[in-house]
Parts: sequence; C-alpha cells; structure tokens
Amino acid sequence: MKYAVLGTGMVGRAVAARLAELGHDVTVGTRDPEATSARTDGDAPYAAWAADHADVSLATFADAAAGADVVVHAGSGLAALDLLGAAGADNLAGKVLVDISNPLDFSAGFPPTLFVKDTDSLGEQIQRAFPQARVVKTLNTLTADLMVHPGALPEASTVFVSGDDAEAKAIATAMLTEFGHSDVIDLGDISTARGTEMLLPVWLRLMGSLGTATFNFKIVR
Amino acid sequence: MKYAVLGTGMVGRAVAARLAELGHDVTVGTRDPEATSARTDGDAPYAAWAADHADVSLATFADAAAGADVVVHAGSGLAALDLLGAAGADNLAGKVLVDISNPLDFSAGFPPTLFVKDTDSLGEQIQRAFPQARVVKTLNTLTADLMVHPGALPEASTVFVSGDDAEAKAIATAMLTEFGHSDVIDLGDISTARGTEMLLPVWLRLMGSLGTATFNFKIVR
Repeated sequence: MKYAVLGTGMVGRAVAARLAELGHDVTVGTRDPEATSARTDGDAPYAAWAADHADVSLATFADAAAGADVVVHAGSGLAALDLLGAAGADNLAGKVLVDISNPLDFSAGFPPTLFVKDTDSLGEQIQRAFPQARVVKTLNTLTADLMVHPGALPEASTVFVSGDDAEAKAIATAMLTEFGHSDVIDLGDISTARGTEMLLPVWLRLMGSLGTATFNFKIVR
Repeated sequence: MKYAVLGTGMVGRAVAARLAELGHDVTVGTRDPEATSARTDGDAPYAAWAADHADVSLATFADAAAGADVVVHAGSGLAALDLLGAAGADNLAGKVLVDISNPLDFSAGFPPTLFVKDTDSLGEQIQRAFPQARVVKTLNTLTADLMVHPGALPEASTVFVSGDDAEAKAIATAMLTEFGHSDVIDLGDISTARGTEMLLPVWLRLMGSLGTATFNFKIVR
C-alpha cells in the first residue's frame, strides 16, 4: 500500500516510521520540502529524523497525496482544512483519508478547548470540505507512540473508527491491526467523531493526573 | 454514614438500594413524597420499588438533605440546580455532595447534546451555586447498574473523581470502593468535571455501536 503522511511533527513521524517499518511505501508531505529539510530550529530537526528513516520520502502535500492510495492527515487540527486544501481536492478524491487530528484551541492557554464540538466535529468538517475523500477518523484518542506501538502498554486497549465509507473503515482498520491494535470499535458514521474528539478534555486531565501520556482507553464489556 | 439520595429514577434507585444493602442509613429525596408514593404511571412505579426496599426512607429533598452526612445528586442534569435549590443551600452546607448527573440536552432528539461543556461544566455550576457544599463529581461515566455493581463486568474498570475538597473526594472514594470499584482516578479540581461530562458523547455512540450499556472505560497504563 502506498501511504502519504501529511505533517512532519511527532504524530506524522511516528506514523510514517511505523508504516515504513511494516514495509509500506511512505511519502511524508510538507508545505515546502526544501524548507523542511533545511530547518535546524528546535531539538528535533526533520533532517535528523529523515537521516534515520532513509526509506521515507519527502514531497509537497500535493505530490505526496497524488501518489498515495491512503492519505494520513497528521497535522494540527487548527490547520487541517488549509493543509488538506494545499494537498488538493483532486489528489484526495476517491482516497482513504485517515484523519488523526483534534480540534484543539490553545489560544486561551492550557488545557486547550475545542474549536468545534458536540453539534459538529473536525472529522465532519473535513468530510464536507472534501466530499470525494473517504474520511476515517481514528487514532486521535492516544499519544503518538501508542498509536503505532500499542504493545507498549501492559494490556490491549481500544481504538475507534468513524466514517461514512465501510470499505475505507476496513482499510483503516487493517492499518490499525498492522500497528498492533487488537480492539478496534467501529462507532458508525463520521458524525461519531464528535464522540472521540470530545474525549480529548478528559485525556488532557488524565495526562495531568497520571503524570504521563502513556495510557489509553479500553472499553471493558 | 447517613446518605440522602436525591432523585427517584433509575440512578437514584440503584444507588439507594446499594447503599442500604451495604448497611447505610438511606433516605431518598423527592419533591413531593406523597405524590411519588401514589404514582402508578410507567412500568416501574416508585411504590413497587419501595416495597422491595423497606429499609430506604422517602422524604422531601430538604428533609433528606438535612438529615444526611453525604448527599448524592442522582437527578437529571437539566433540573439539577432547581432540585438542589429545593434541597436548600443550608441543608447542603458543609456536606459532601456527590453529583452523578450529566448536562444532557434532548431537545433536538437523540443523541443528546451537552448544555454546558468545555469552558464550564455542570459540576462547576453546582459548586458555584452552592459554594458551601463540597461537590464531588463522579460515576457519571457509566450506566446505573455498573455504578454500584462494577463486578458485573469481566474485569476491573475505572471511575473518576473531580472536586475542590480533598477530604470530600476521600469520602466519595470510600463509597466507590464499597461499591466495588478498585480503580478510582482523582482527576483534580471540580473543573476536571469538564472532561468526564464530555465523555458522554462517545459513551452514547458506544452504546449504539455495542448495542448495550453494560460497558465501561478502563484507563490502561
């Protein structure tokens, strides 16, 4: 399977590295590949990560999406529609678009609030903006390392999928299973992303209370 | 410990019955005890339940609260402030007030939305309205039967407490432990109720997807 992973942050790198490790053809998408490769700011420049992951290509959002079977949106929630616009509706048409982002608004400090919630969701906004993409919301309820290595926890935990297209959800679920997830709950159509996006507020308080991001929800039943 | 359980619905009955079974002195509070006892509508009139639970008293909200050490609010979220006003600020002053309710708004049908969320919570509204009560938000994240009999699930799951008063949270946690909960996470002050109240949207979708309310969140870490 050919994957595009849009976003060069922690989530994008974790997903890209894991997909490549699993033998997939992976291109990371960014706004300006030259600028991304040249960046030396911060304690984890992209070029250093890329040197350790020579099997992962870097391209523009549009080129990455154009060449992929499955597109993973791993950018920030606030920039999601803009980033996907740069990828291009034509390049997303017919593709499985896995959206991992959360509608976090940090403008009033920490903990962030949600800029869309309850009567709408970011997953739905993306589906409406790109009606020909087959959006699947998933993995937005746990930290990047656990998204791709759930076995790091002492027992199996749960991830969720939301989307209007059953085949797209099956493709996303196959990816999750490859990552190591053994309990994937299909919540229903893309409007059920309201539920998982609204998990973030308790996730953030749990991180504060437990003093770690290495935890996940398990649905005991 | 003397408990008042305010609310005669499913949640109130489950909590009252369990507390009485555990040997506590329990009074259920209602607006008009005579009317509640006389009610014959519905498939589960209060009088029939009361006949099976002769050790549970029935009184007005105010009388129930006045005589209790711990007051459990088991009414609907929409009526919470009104119900607690009927109980009386003086009768709640200094008491542990365990709030189980959720700010569900069914006015637009199912699934309900939340009438307060993200930047405020029902738990905080109650604490602000009754500043001398020691509010603890808990048990609002699972179905009534599992609140009081968590052992009905195949493995231990998690419940949460939120509140500004450490001693009140310890008293509420002792009650939860008596109910059978072995994993109680203290999320922090009452503002963390925003997190657990915002779990309801995914809880409702899970109930739809799983076809049962007999499930609970477990925080794997």
